[in-house]
Amino acid sequence: MTGLGAQMHALVERLYPLCRSITGDGVRDTLDIVGEYVPLTVHEVPSGTQVLDWTVPQEWNIRDAYIADATGKRVVDFAASSLHVLGYSVPVSATMPLSELRGHLHTLPEHPSWVPYRTSYYTPDWGFCLAQETLDALPDGEYEVCIDSTLADGHLTYAEHVIHGQVPDEVIFSCHVCHPSLANDNLAGIAVATSLARALAEQKPYYTYRFIYAPGTIGAITWLARNAQRVNGASPAHGGRPARAKPSVGEGPRAGGKVKHGLVLACAGDPGRLTYKQSRRGDAEIDRVLRHVLAASERPHQVVEFTPYGYDERQYCSPGFDLGVGSLSRTPYAAYPEYHTSADNPDFVSPAAMADTLAVCREACAVLDRNRRYRNLSPYGEPQLGRRGLYDALGGRSDTKQAQLAMLWVLNLSDGEHDLLHVAERSGLPFDTVAAAAGALHGAGLIEA
Amino acid sequence: MTGLGAQMHALVERLYPLCRSITGDGVRDTLDIVGEYVPLTVHEVPSGTQVLDWTVPQEWNIRDAYIADATGKRVVDFAASSLHVLGYSVPVSATMPLSELRGHLHTLPEHPSWVPYRTSYYTPDWGFCLAQETLDALPDGEYEVCIDSTLADGHLTYAEHVIHGQVPDEVIFSCHVCHPSLANDNLAGIAVATSLARALAEQKPYYTYRFIYAPGTIGAITWLARNAQRVNGASPAHGGRPARAKPSVGEGPRAGGKVKHGLVLACAGDPGRLTYKQSRRGDAEIDRVLRHVLAASERPHQVVEFTPYGYDERQYCSPGFDLGVGSLSRTPYAAYPEYHTSADNPDFVSPAAMADTLAVCREACAVLDRNRRYRNLSPYGEPQLGRRGLYDALGGRSDTKQAQLAMLWVLNLSDGEHDLLHVAERSGLPFDTVAAAAGALHGAGLIEA
Amino acid sequence: MTGLGAQMHALVERLYPLCRSITGDGVRDTLDIVGEYVPLTVHEVPSGTQVLDWTVPQEWNIRDAYIADATGKRVVDFAASSLHVLGYSVPVSATMPLSELRGHLHTLPEHPSWVPYRTSYYTPDWGFCLAQETLDALPDGEYEVCIDSTLADGHLTYAEHVIHGQVPDEVIFSCHVCHPSLANDNLAGIAVATSLARALAEQKPYYTYRFIYAPGTIGAITWLARNAQRVNGASPAHGGRPARAKPSVGEGPRAGGKVKHGLVLACAGDPGRLTYKQSRRGDAEIDRVLRHVLAASERPHQVVEFTPYGYDERQYCSPGFDLGVGSLSRTPYAAYPEYHTSADNPDFVSPAAMADTLAVCREACAVLDRNRRYRNLSPYGEPQLGRRGLYDALGGRSDTKQAQLAMLWVLNLSDGEHDLLHVAERSGLPFDTVAAAAGALHGAGLIEA
Repeated sequence: MTGLGAQMHALVERLYPLCRSITGDGVRDTLDIVGEYVPLTVHEVPSGTQVLDWTVPQEWNIRDAYIADATGKRVVDFAASSLHVLGYSVPVSATMPLSELRGHLHTLPEHPSWVPYRTSYYTPDWGFCLAQETLDALPDGEYEVCIDSTLADGHLTYAEHVIHGQVPDEVIFSCHVCHPSLANDNLAGIAVATSLARALAEQKPYYTYRFIYAPGTIGAITWLARNAQRVNGASPAHGGRPARAKPSVGEGPRAGGKVKHGLVLACAGDPGRLTYKQSRRGDAEIDRVLRHVLAASERPHQVVEFTPYGYDERQYCSPGFDLGVGSLSRTPYAAYPEYHTSADNPDFVSPAAMADTLAVCREACAVLDRNRRYRNLSPYGEPQLGRRGLYDALGGRSDTKQAQLAMLWVLNLSDGEHDLLHVAERSGLPFDTVAAAAGALHGAGLIEA
Repeated sequence: MTGLGAQMHALVERLYPLCRSITGDGVRDTLDIVGEYVPLTVHEVPSGTQVLDWTVPQEWNIRDAYIADATGKRVVDFAASSLHVLGYSVPVSATMPLSELRGHLHTLPEHPSWVPYRTSYYTPDWGFCLAQETLDALPDGEYEVCIDSTLADGHLTYAEHVIHGQVPDEVIFSCHVCHPSLANDNLAGIAVATSLARALAEQKPYYTYRFIYAPGTIGAITWLARNAQRVNGASPAHGGRPARAKPSVGEGPRAGGKVKHGLVLACAGDPGRLTYKQSRRGDAEIDRVLRHVLAASERPHQVVEFTPYGYDERQYCSPGFDLGVGSLSRTPYAAYPEYHTSADNPDFVSPAAMADTLAVCREACAVLDRNRRYRNLSPYGEPQLGRRGLYDALGGRSDTKQAQLAMLWVLNLSDGEHDLLHVAERSGLPFDTVAAAAGALHGAGLIEA
Repeated sequence: MTGLGAQMHALVERLYPLCRSITGDGVRDTLDIVGEYVPLTVHEVPSGTQVLDWTVPQEWNIRDAYIADATGKRVVDFAASSLHVLGYSVPVSATMPLSELRGHLHTLPEHPSWVPYRTSYYTPDWGFCLAQETLDALPDGEYEVCIDSTLADGHLTYAEHVIHGQVPDEVIFSCHVCHPSLANDNLAGIAVATSLARALAEQKPYYTYRFIYAPGTIGAITWLARNAQRVNGASPAHGGRPARAKPSVGEGPRAGGKVKHGLVLACAGDPGRLTYKQSRRGDAEIDRVLRHVLAASERPHQVVEFTPYGYDERQYCSPGFDLGVGSLSRTPYAAYPEYHTSADNPDFVSPAAMADTLAVCREACAVLDRNRRYRNLSPYGEPQLGRRGLYDALGGRSDTKQAQLAMLWVLNLSDGEHDLLHVAERSGLPFDTVAAAAGALHGAGLIEA
């Protein structure tokens, strides 16, 4: 695990300098690097494409940006940090007094040495973000400002990685790739997702696992618009009523499985305890799985209710889709002072924390993948386990006693209504024990899925 | 509010001396006075009329009553307090020794200076109520007793005041008008209902509001018998099975709305904390509204379960009707020592307490009137609020942040299943904020009722 | 009650020496003795009969068994205690050194003076159970071992006693009769069941009560196989799917009632507090009745969740049957150190404890027998109780006030959905008061069952 933690941290550090936004080459460069770890299918969606209620915006790219003083010295320089420029700034090249420039400067007075992260995606604007103490040190006078950016028709870029399972039904892991030099939000999420994908690829999972790397909000909305048929039962209209219109975007629906479960990964590397934010449904299987895994692991954690703000669970859990998608993070969205500042840097995330988040994801997948409803084929009275060799093998050891209890529980509750997770919860037995018992009973022909 | 409190207290004092009962001129005089504040439709229902399982009794009126000692001095005098006569006493004119008279005297030994309130509506009897200390001071000897009352065919009297709303569906406020000189039970309820009616008349409410001023039990039963079609889905029989017979009383069913919600008002002016007694259903909308309003207001209060005794919620919540009618009081029915005694006089009720009860009623109406289920017309992903001006207007102020959150919550939960009160409860946002957000979204065409 | 307790204890002592097993003359002798108290119908089911997933085994009988030392002295003797022989031991007659014999000896090192109880029903084996201190005292050397038992085709024996009630629907009380010299597990259960049957026979109960005396597991499975049609809606197959095959065993289904409720009685006489183990359904009427009776009685007790191990509730609550059958015991299955040892002897059970268990059973039957759903025939408003004499008779005494409240509660909740137990629970009134009120209302024609 420490090896994996270190690998993930190295990926965070490698991605950190790139200037990501909701479109542009920063996203492409990020996906290129992630693609070195897991093969990605990269999608490019043209500006102007209608996606659900939204329109894919123009693509933003930036080459340079600075504020220079009268001597030509760069007092704020994009080269030092991608955070220094207001995201989606329109190009500017001008000289103006500090008094006029102030209207375009963003600082954090309460954290004078930190640089804030700010964007203006849908309202044309330009600006710089800098430390309050930098601003305080600037003498009055004329300053040259330069933002060498372009806003032009182009594409929105997102990527997918799919691990085909035994069934086409899907579990999605979604992480946002639109934040520039911010480590916990969300390079740690990208790193955990990528390590998880590599781990799952080493086995033949039951479900098909789909990893979605997309810009926040507009990226998830674009993915949903292009994959509406993959989402169980939903047929979205564009701002109209359900079922009034069919989605008409991009590649259209593909044959195959439905999205059954999912997790949004974000803030996956800070030192705080784990937080699971439940899906809108609150009792979706993913919610039960995460609650069980976190409780059983005895890790410090909290389980919180769904709220319609945060990360892209907002989109997956919009009422038309209402997917069983929760969100796993450590300290949640906006709940730590470093959030959306230059203090959310690679030092803020640790290999151990990312390894821990990854471990929870793997445990959750292991439960989800084995969690099925069985039907007891011998439901009248207990079947005679002894003559099937399911009793003989059991001595007085506590683990075999547990295995025997687990068989009785699985037999008793396998009426087609209760899944193995329910059996584990009601019996108080570990899920692994229950799943092993179900395997033995299935092998003996006593239950069927 | 203090002005309104003083007005209500003045009404209590004006009504206090009248000798009300379940029939008779005391009720008419009371309704005449209330009619000076709000226009009333007065109904007179003849004695002998069958109303559900009951029969309208003979009308009782009383002109004078006293016990006089051997010198002719009135030692107990109806003119001093209407409580001195057992309600519905048959006429009597006789002279008898104290020993014989004692069988007709009612006192409260545990409160020797208080006069109890007693009635005998359905068993012919006569009697006097007096203070224990008055009784103790009476020397043995002969006493003249006189009750100049009449029990004869006449009418039962009740009244209604209706404020027509945007829809014909109704909210009823019901208060009993049968108690003689008792202030909290129920002149305070009458005063609060009347002030509430005046306040609602100044606006055009969503619902139609009906105020019912009727004698307890037999009055409510009479109203229900005559308004059975107004009660959602119910078609009462007279003591028989549901739907076996049609109601055949009085004016019969009228066209129009159904009773959707209601409150019984009683004990509305004592110094105790507020008590909301839930409807039989327990989860009726009125129950949710009152629980929310009381909790949100942070007033001291208690919410109690339905019980089939108390005031006329007993009738509205009988299983055949099972209306969403709760009961609002301060100290509840029979739970204060002054209950049904001469100590329940105008000094026991305060302008401030009545104003507070009135305020809760108004807050409840304000929530009820705006509490609707909406449907998100753009339910797939979040709609883009910014291009509709629903985001731009919002700065960083905490109230606008709340307004924005409220819009996200309304959008997320408006699936036709959840009303705005549910949104407020789940989000923890004030109902006003949620309702305002729904208004803005409705204005933008994003949701429909 | 002490008289009954003493009678039950005398029955325990009388049954104690017999060597019961899942088949054989020990069971027959036991049923002969029980039959002196209540008339029994004894069933003999041939070895080899298929019963659900099981087969009735060969019948086991034993005449003598001992370990004798080189001098011929019996150091372990079946005549001293039926526990000394491993249940279902195959016959053996041999001489062997202690070192070889040890593999067939069972002791309890943690309780060196106690003899354990062990069986090997379905794996042919032989063995002796003895105190650790007896074993420790045995010198090395040759020992003669003799088990004069037979395992041969014969029968499985069980018995029933039925008290016909006003309706054919049944309540079953089931107790196991397969344990040899163990008092709490389960002679106390047999004694309580028998005393209960005698008590119920003295009245004409509402339900038909069936007492089942059968060997554990295989006996209950045999009874279920032969009474499948008596079990509501179930049609068991033999190890196959529900409804794929019909039961084909023995006397087949009989006309008559269905099993509606039931209790498994075991461990009914130890000094611990009462334990009610709920049925698999958890909200079956029997569960509600026992919870209510135990809570109302203020006896020390615990109510525990269903688990698929313990006594024959395992079979009655298998998912195909899923009967409303709970289990009443004092200290539960396997939760006391004396469990399945020679320390579970008649001294371990007391007349008072058995009388207490019996009292709870009788209270439960009294509630169950009167617990019905009524329908208010006058559901619109309250019916006028006074003119029916249901109000007049009531003075101010607290018991009559409770009776009046109970009538209002029964009227209010009798909508065909709520039974009297629900009324008692919601009102907080004693079940007896509620049932009496229902009786009065039924007598007045105001409610119907």
